[in-house]
Amino acid sequence: MTDRTFRDAFAVPAGPMELAGFEPAGRPVRPSKKRGTKPPVKRLRDLQERLWAESTAEGRRRLLLVLQGMDTSGKGGVAQHVVGAVGPIGVQYTAFKAPTEEEKKHDFLWRIRKRLPPAGVIAVFDRSHYEDAVVPRVHGTVPQEEWESRYDVINDFEAELIAAGTTILKVFLHVGYDMQRKRLLARLDNPDKHWKFNEQDLAERARWSEYQAAYSDVLIRCNTANAPWYVVPSDSKKYRNWVVGELLRETLEDLDPQYPQPPLDVDSLKARLAPPH
Amino acid sequence: MTDRTFRDAFAVPAGPMELAGFEPAGRPVRPSKKRGTKPPVKRLRDLQERLWAESTAEGRRRLLLVLQGMDTSGKGGVAQHVVGAVGPIGVQYTAFKAPTEEEKKHDFLWRIRKRLPPAGVIAVFDRSHYEDAVVPRVHGTVPQEEWESRYDVINDFEAELIAAGTTILKVFLHVGYDMQRKRLLARLDNPDKHWKFNEQDLAERARWSEYQAAYSDVLIRCNTANAPWYVVPSDSKKYRNWVVGELLRETLEDLDPQYPQPPLDVDSLKARLAPPH
Repeated sequence: MTDRTFRDAFAVPAGPMELAGFEPAGRPVRPSKKRGTKPPVKRLRDLQERLWAESTAEGRRRLLLVLQGMDTSGKGGVAQHVVGAVGPIGVQYTAFKAPTEEEKKHDFLWRIRKRLPPAGVIAVFDRSHYEDAVVPRVHGTVPQEEWESRYDVINDFEAELIAAGTTILKVFLHVGYDMQRKRLLARLDNPDKHWKFNEQDLAERARWSEYQAAYSDVLIRCNTANAPWYVVPSDSKKYRNWVVGELLRETLEDLDPQYPQPPLDVDSLKARLAPPH
Repeated sequence: MTDRTFRDAFAVPAGPMELAGFEPAGRPVRPSKKRGTKPPVKRLRDLQERLWAESTAEGRRRLLLVLQGMDTSGKGGVAQHVVGAVGPIGVQYTAFKAPTEEEKKHDFLWRIRKRLPPAGVIAVFDRSHYEDAVVPRVHGTVPQEEWESRYDVINDFEAELIAAGTTILKVFLHVGYDMQRKRLLARLDNPDKHWKFNEQDLAERARWSEYQAAYSDVLIRCNTANAPWYVVPSDSKKYRNWVVGELLRETLEDLDPQYPQPPLDVDSLKARLAPPH
């Protein structure tokens, strides 16, 4: 019996929707008194090792965790505290920044393809191809027909990955406008965090509602049956990490990866390892 | 005052030496009663974040941790439990297997260069360019003048990396012949570990003393002032992880990476973040 508790609770429903309808401090699933909000790290480690082990035999399965969200929503925090607890073997992290000059010369999926997970690996995208359906729209740098066409390009791209053995888990970390302010202020209050601060962050914040509109469309148009979107309330870091950990656990449990069982002649191998007389 | 406790205790001494002179169950530094053998994970995380932060400004420094050792010595274990506790952001893990057909068509450093750390990153090599100075010698697949010439090629290569801002920490995980037997037997006793077992492992084990001789030479000939070798007793997993963690800590503390201090006008930025009236 497959556990779908978290996927059912956090999935973006089919049809029209607005991010405004999701509460950044909401708790659609309440943590149990006993286990609290500790991500299921041990279980994730076990599942990841099995997925990795599978790939040493015939296994071609791999997982792509896409993290999107406004500044300070915690994409890096999830990578560090949830996925980080699993790796680094069989885990591959990529932060996609504003495209470089070289990247701009290629189609927007070029740099994405280079960082796709090989068999057995969990890849984490801290920002992703979805930036290209959101940022140019908000900044008005490409015409509407172009950014709108990218929804289909992305859906086709993801279908191609799935056909080749990739499971895609797409999570939007939903932080509120006020919580973002608090987190940016906290960065300003700590000189050791100033390197994380970029004046551009304020310019993006000033476009908050355009971003919410652009993300809402992405969450609708690219919410496919095989690669659905999840929205995770991210005003609480603990709650956010817990939910993403559980979504990852459910997804991996669905794959049910198995240790390969090579036909070893155990007794004869043991005999060869016997201590010298 | 730079702490050199672990580096001094585990460094390969200058001049002739034999691996046989190092005790795989030895404890050149004894853990303190209070702290035990817990690797300094929190401190490592802090240092790694600073190194990473540095690279977002002008910092070009990076670190390469080279792990070598016989089967079951725990190269993957160190990557997982020591470096894994730090990552995955700013950490890049590579396991080098037997060269592929494509890799064989290039010089032996070709595949190594592709996985060197970018600025701000700690790269972990689980096996490395040192395989190419050891395995072909033990198997007699290249003539002596070729494998012997690789010592100089490697020393020049490492000098080049150092000149470009890479700090190299080279660790030989020294497991004993008997402990390897125990660990291989444990793998055979656990069906979930059979995927880790390769009949070739026994063939390599049968060449134990040739490997010890080959590694001894590598530890002498490539023990340069700027990229010295350390030998870490690895019969105890806990002791091994602790010592590698402390060697990594000392090395990073020597670098003393600093958070960039961009010239932010904090007051004006805060004013722009004021809540709406």
